[in-house]
Amino acid sequence: MFGAEFEQLKSEGNKIIPIEANKVKIVSMEFLLDDKSKAIIWRGPMKIKALKQLIADVEWGELDFLIVDLPPGSSDEPLSIVQTIKDLDGMVVVTTPQQVSLLDITKSINFAEVTNTPILGIIENMSGFVCPHCGEITNIFKKDGGKKIADELLIDFLGAVPLIPAICVAGDAGKPAVLVDEESENIFNKIIEKLENKLNI
Amino acid sequence: MFGAEFEQLKSEGNKIIPIEANKVKIVSMEFLLDDKSKAIIWRGPMKIKALKQLIADVEWGELDFLIVDLPPGSSDEPLSIVQTIKDLDGMVVVTTPQQVSLLDITKSINFAEVTNTPILGIIENMSGFVCPHCGEITNIFKKDGGKKIADELLIDFLGAVPLIPAICVAGDAGKPAVLVDEESENIFNKIIEKLENKLNI
Repeated sequence: MFGAEFEQLKSEGNKIIPIEANKVKIVSMEFLLDDKSKAIIWRGPMKIKALKQLIADVEWGELDFLIVDLPPGSSDEPLSIVQTIKDLDGMVVVTTPQQVSLLDITKSINFAEVTNTPILGIIENMSGFVCPHCGEITNIFKKDGGKKIADELLIDFLGAVPLIPAICVAGDAGKPAVLVDEESENIFNKIIEKLENKLNI
Repeated sequence: MFGAEFEQLKSEGNKIIPIEANKVKIVSMEFLLDDKSKAIIWRGPMKIKALKQLIADVEWGELDFLIVDLPPGSSDEPLSIVQTIKDLDGMVVVTTPQQVSLLDITKSINFAEVTNTPILGIIENMSGFVCPHCGEITNIFKKDGGKKIADELLIDFLGAVPLIPAICVAGDAGKPAVLVDEESENIFNKIIEKLENKLNI
């Protein structure tokens, strides 16, 4: 989604040099593979060792933000992140609007509490679809579930990202949608503004 | 999605008795929790021990199918499944149509090869959306990516599941959509038929 899929990580001394794409420095296990179609079949301990290296052993330079994009769950990955990054500003919880997903995010919120991780806010993804043919809205995965749970638990609601075909098209073309699609730019910028305010940046 | 979220697993002797909902026997860590909002914060080895118990220590009785619904990835979970269930019939790969997801499923397919797991086929999920207001189709996450990769790798294509709001509504109401929504029933039944043929059932 950054147009960096054929890149390979290099090292200098004992530091990994991150890939730079669309002004963002990125590291990923993906960039260590010779053959991108190969699966990395590792159990937890191996995975976690690599995860820690991809944070601590990288020549990051001066960063505005360090963002770790995690899969759902409350096992090895988020646990290792909160243990590795000691001065973590917090966690952003992304959910889809329907009830089944909301059950999952109460677990993420509980994970944050147990590990003393601040929650910066909740984002509702796949939040409604505007038909480009007739302009009518369909809430394929319902609507406002993320907003409601944020209100209920007194967590900041950062915004809703609707289903926008341009996000998929841009991502597949290797360009983040915020750079090439005005609608996406507006939506994401509002979320970023709220996050910046929250972090006093 | 089965209307079973408040159930609790019980045991008889040293066997776990599965929950029965909508004619399906189900086990999940979820059914062992007193408080469903609590996260289970376990590292890989603990998780895997529980996963194995939820397969091997259950009083399943006579089953038509044993289906393990796994998160994406090629780490502890699928590895433990293929090691625990020795006579596994195979793996069904579910993907969304866009390029970014297809990169991921080549890894799942590689995982299957490395672990000698037969691949029963590929299903394309979130495959287009028919606007209920005007009837026009929008391919929010593109279209036919799953079909194309199946053809390319000579893997059976089992079918495409479009974005249907009824699936979400039914799931949140605790009823599988196949039981209450005719369109979903038709789509899923075609997939099941192909799978049954494949498995000579």
